[in-house]
Amino acid sequence: MNRFIDLDFTRSLVEEKELSRYENQLKISNADLWSGREAFTGWVNLPLSYDKDEVQRIKETAEKIRKQCQVFIVIGIGGSYLGARAVINALKTEEDGYRVGGPPEIYFAGQNLSGTYHSELIEKIKGKDLCLCVISKSGTTTESSIAFSILKDEVYKKYGRDEGNRRIYAITDAEKGILREETTREGYDSFVVPDDIGGRYSVLTAVGLLPIAVAGIDIDKLLEGAALAAETRLSSKRQERFYFSTLAATRLALLEKGKAIEIFEYYEPKLQYFAEWLKQLFGESEGKNGKGIFPAALQFSTDLHSMGQFLQEGNQIFFEMVLNVVNPQKDLIVPESAGSLLAGKSMNAVNQAAVKGVMAAHEAVGVPIIKLDIPELTPYYLGQMIYFFETVCALSGYLMGVNPFDQPGVENYKSEMRKVLKG
Amino acid sequence: MNRFIDLDFTRSLVEEKELSRYENQLKISNADLWSGREAFTGWVNLPLSYDKDEVQRIKETAEKIRKQCQVFIVIGIGGSYLGARAVINALKTEEDGYRVGGPPEIYFAGQNLSGTYHSELIEKIKGKDLCLCVISKSGTTTESSIAFSILKDEVYKKYGRDEGNRRIYAITDAEKGILREETTREGYDSFVVPDDIGGRYSVLTAVGLLPIAVAGIDIDKLLEGAALAAETRLSSKRQERFYFSTLAATRLALLEKGKAIEIFEYYEPKLQYFAEWLKQLFGESEGKNGKGIFPAALQFSTDLHSMGQFLQEGNQIFFEMVLNVVNPQKDLIVPESAGSLLAGKSMNAVNQAAVKGVMAAHEAVGVPIIKLDIPELTPYYLGQMIYFFETVCALSGYLMGVNPFDQPGVENYKSEMRKVLKG
Repeated sequence: MNRFIDLDFTRSLVEEKELSRYENQLKISNADLWSGREAFTGWVNLPLSYDKDEVQRIKETAEKIRKQCQVFIVIGIGGSYLGARAVINALKTEEDGYRVGGPPEIYFAGQNLSGTYHSELIEKIKGKDLCLCVISKSGTTTESSIAFSILKDEVYKKYGRDEGNRRIYAITDAEKGILREETTREGYDSFVVPDDIGGRYSVLTAVGLLPIAVAGIDIDKLLEGAALAAETRLSSKRQERFYFSTLAATRLALLEKGKAIEIFEYYEPKLQYFAEWLKQLFGESEGKNGKGIFPAALQFSTDLHSMGQFLQEGNQIFFEMVLNVVNPQKDLIVPESAGSLLAGKSMNAVNQAAVKGVMAAHEAVGVPIIKLDIPELTPYYLGQMIYFFETVCALSGYLMGVNPFDQPGVENYKSEMRKVLKG
Repeated sequence: MNRFIDLDFTRSLVEEKELSRYENQLKISNADLWSGREAFTGWVNLPLSYDKDEVQRIKETAEKIRKQCQVFIVIGIGGSYLGARAVINALKTEEDGYRVGGPPEIYFAGQNLSGTYHSELIEKIKGKDLCLCVISKSGTTTESSIAFSILKDEVYKKYGRDEGNRRIYAITDAEKGILREETTREGYDSFVVPDDIGGRYSVLTAVGLLPIAVAGIDIDKLLEGAALAAETRLSSKRQERFYFSTLAATRLALLEKGKAIEIFEYYEPKLQYFAEWLKQLFGESEGKNGKGIFPAALQFSTDLHSMGQFLQEGNQIFFEMVLNVVNPQKDLIVPESAGSLLAGKSMNAVNQAAVKGVMAAHEAVGVPIIKLDIPELTPYYLGQMIYFFETVCALSGYLMGVNPFDQPGVENYKSEMRKVLKG
């Protein structure tokens, strides 16, 4: 299939003439983004010109890991884990995780500082063959350093140092930093976190691709989807080409009307971490100089029974971005006992009725809603979504007058924390 | 231990004299709440005067279920599952869930309309002994009706109708509704959803207590904690007594200063569903007549690496409510290889340093922060937290001039959805 994900804007969400205000700035921003001259825009041309040899080596390494272990632990935080987790959770069924001979069970570590979380993880993996993948550009991130040191001890205890080192994979800076030094010293298999791509834009580099490939997901299709999205930006079809700019401009126009929260809504629980990835992408890109739209996520219909009241009648400071999977992976038919309105229908058909019902009810009270139709949850469409939202986010940051590729404010708490640790 | 959870307000968050504006209204609201005359305030005196015989029957039924099955599926949505899930996820370790002879594995169903979710659930429980607990006041909720009809089919296929019915437990209206009729007809063991307590305030009734007891959690301690909180409201110690009113008034004062988002932040992943419960409690209670504070949740330190930039330097339309567990359940010592600053420290000590570091960094740029210190994650303290937040939420709703106990807006999308389903 070669279709591009489909974007729907609700009726009279924002007037065309309001959006035309941003047209000149968008032209400049688009040109800047494509120029290749801006810092940290290595992701822009990546899907069209990635290193085929490296992707081949990623696939081979993933295949080796899949044979080597029953449990694969990805150690990283923020941009060093969220992209992989988003794609793996969207595409991997629970059964896969426990199937002997299939892909290994995949766990994430070092994405928090909870002793309870990591104690229980160690308990859970006892007796199983183990590989680690540590992901950190600098190697100095507190959370991943701690988790890596604890889990490395487990690996060494079990296999000794030599065999242990053959079970550790590192994704880090090409030359600098404490993790690169260790990688060279101990001889870990390794990949590189590129210099010109920031963490939250890095899912289509080795950072995301290695764990995703270990999960048994087709990374060629993921890159193919992203490439289609990159080509669509240059498409001769006006409608598709303008999706990117139109969404960026619409978001800013909504913010200026007092809609300061964007709610990412999804009706498939498997999109939970994709929404978390979106929160980082937009929150970290826009949230500076006192600017930005606050990103939130809700799982529907679950949260219609918790936050539905607020959306319908509460403080109207938000707009909705619906991620709608048109044809989900599996389905069930509703039995007779559920009553005549529902019986015989497919569960997913009822879910689609919920999508329509919610949009009608919320539009009726003036909530701005944008809907993205995703034909299926596959690597191909996830690749499209990744590239699409990265581009929209970059343009959006430019329109707000901030640098969408830096994150100067993330160091403040870390230096305060170090003061506390030094006592 | 008999300590009350401890509330910290950051320096000069809101001036005392600003809060005094709400003093008269708070007196009236407190009196209304305690009067017993208001609709849906049955939860207010519940911890001090609950039906001991019913709680005894809940415990006996839970014990029976624990012997009867390996898998226990709770079917409900919104207030019919979120309280139980919040407490179970906070207190149950993962190992418990898989330990043979221990508490059964507990799953939740009917909290979404995903065919994929429910297909995978059925796959996962294959071959295991099964009990169902269906929770719905009316019995007509779409999500739980569908899931119940599908899972009931599974139970009947496996055990036949007679034995199947002995494995189904219903919590529903005492007399009315389709689920009560079915319960009577099929002879399910059942409990009652009280008339004078709304879903989001119902966790300390059978709605929450039965699943929580099945998970092997001490519900007496949960109720004891809630009772201490109820008594604290009447305490002679001004500081503790005023926590409730002060927090309610502070939240409104912050909203009036443009802080329209409350972020519930927790450093222990096990509090994820407690934060979801808080989102329903506050969102559904306050979000009406165009009012309310938008509730969001962030898991730290995880989300410091995604939303941390926004909090530090972004659009300052939020305040933070930190749920800080002082002594978590388990811990690990950081090994040498993590470097001299961290080595030898306990992981939880580093987590506490993160709490302090984040507060210092955010206070420095004027973010309003409220911190709740929870001595330990135990049923006793969760009971306190439940009652504390329910009371604060009720007072807050009164201060905003809305009815914190109704949810008139939740029907709109359902009727639109029915139109779609009818074609």
